[in-house]
Amino acid sequence: VHRTKVRVVEGVLDANDTIAAANRADFDREGVTVVNLMSAPGAGKTALLERVLGTLDGVRAAVLEGDVQGSLDADRLASLHVPVTQLNTDPGFGGECHLDANMVRSALGDVPLAETDLLVIENVGNLVCPAEFKVGEDARVMVSSVTEGEDKPLKYPLMFRTCDLVLVNKIDLLEHLDYDLDLFLHHLDAVHPGVPRMLVSARTGEGVAQWRDWLLERVAEGAGAPA
Amino acid sequence: VHRTKVRVVEGVLDANDTIAAANRADFDREGVTVVNLMSAPGAGKTALLERVLGTLDGVRAAVLEGDVQGSLDADRLASLHVPVTQLNTDPGFGGECHLDANMVRSALGDVPLAETDLLVIENVGNLVCPAEFKVGEDARVMVSSVTEGEDKPLKYPLMFRTCDLVLVNKIDLLEHLDYDLDLFLHHLDAVHPGVPRMLVSARTGEGVAQWRDWLLERVAEGAGAPA
Repeated sequence: VHRTKVRVVEGVLDANDTIAAANRADFDREGVTVVNLMSAPGAGKTALLERVLGTLDGVRAAVLEGDVQGSLDADRLASLHVPVTQLNTDPGFGGECHLDANMVRSALGDVPLAETDLLVIENVGNLVCPAEFKVGEDARVMVSSVTEGEDKPLKYPLMFRTCDLVLVNKIDLLEHLDYDLDLFLHHLDAVHPGVPRMLVSARTGEGVAQWRDWLLERVAEGAGAPA
Repeated sequence: VHRTKVRVVEGVLDANDTIAAANRADFDREGVTVVNLMSAPGAGKTALLERVLGTLDGVRAAVLEGDVQGSLDADRLASLHVPVTQLNTDPGFGGECHLDANMVRSALGDVPLAETDLLVIENVGNLVCPAEFKVGEDARVMVSSVTEGEDKPLKYPLMFRTCDLVLVNKIDLLEHLDYDLDLFLHHLDAVHPGVPRMLVSARTGEGVAQWRDWLLERVAEGAGAPA
């Protein structure tokens, strides 16, 4: 049973990779840099996007917003005058806990790719399955809130191992928590040695300029690369 | 495709229900009350268990600890001299994001059911899939941390709708957050009108006695019911 199950999962992931490559080809043709933004529920993905979307200096951004149900986050971001496409994963039961390449592909017709330099795909809040499914992104950014505890890299290793940047959010709360930041970073380096990390607070704005610059650099890299 | 997918999922959930009923029959025969404890990553499930497990006045508790990888939480709880069984959901790829009835069944041989009055199954940290899979529990308890924001009932409705008790944790941080507790409770009642809820802090111990009493009442109810 164990071996069969692994094979089924490998088949699903293989099909997903094929569709992710097709998404990737579309993004390259249109010159779009794509960031897959992931975290646990309530870590601050949307708040960190709200902080930077209006400050991208001529870079045309769009957002693909993944949620089980509703459009609360899309509504928040739409007020920033950025094109936002909502993608709901709920087909009647509990809903899918992640975006996959095919779901993203099904929504691309609604995303103005030709007028977009940076597409941020905000994934469903979950530290497990979103990490298993490529969607055609250039980079993966994950948000880890200091309120979640220091042990998360050890408990959700794939997520922390496959991301290109870790935003350690809510650092304004550090003084009120029994949270050992050095211990968290030690666990992070055990799972993904040297992965870039930034200490940020969506609430106070601390570290947000650095996160914006990182996005601008990714877009500049993408524009310079052959399509 | 959509319809086919729903049918596949219904088939999986139907098989899961069959195994959950078998678990349920075993628990009834042994007189074990079973609580399925769920939350987002880092909301405080383990910390709230640490607070009550040593204070259950003669009720014999055991824990089945679900994690993608590792045994950090099981190790924490084992120091309380409670039988803890670790169940890892990682078969080599990213890991399963929830426990299902069959995973729980596969671990029951290691749980001392005959010497247990209360079995707490600590699920994988995730607000989506754990709510879809019954494991044979008597009651579902979910932990929602105030650091996660007020919108979570609207974004993860199945989880909030199918639970029997909501522990609103980390209330010691309320004064440091832009969190509107009344708004959260309003959203909670919109999704699951009148569901019992308790304001707690695993850190300060506030509300923990109420949570312990709730557990003791569930065990007393179970003991009085026909096996």
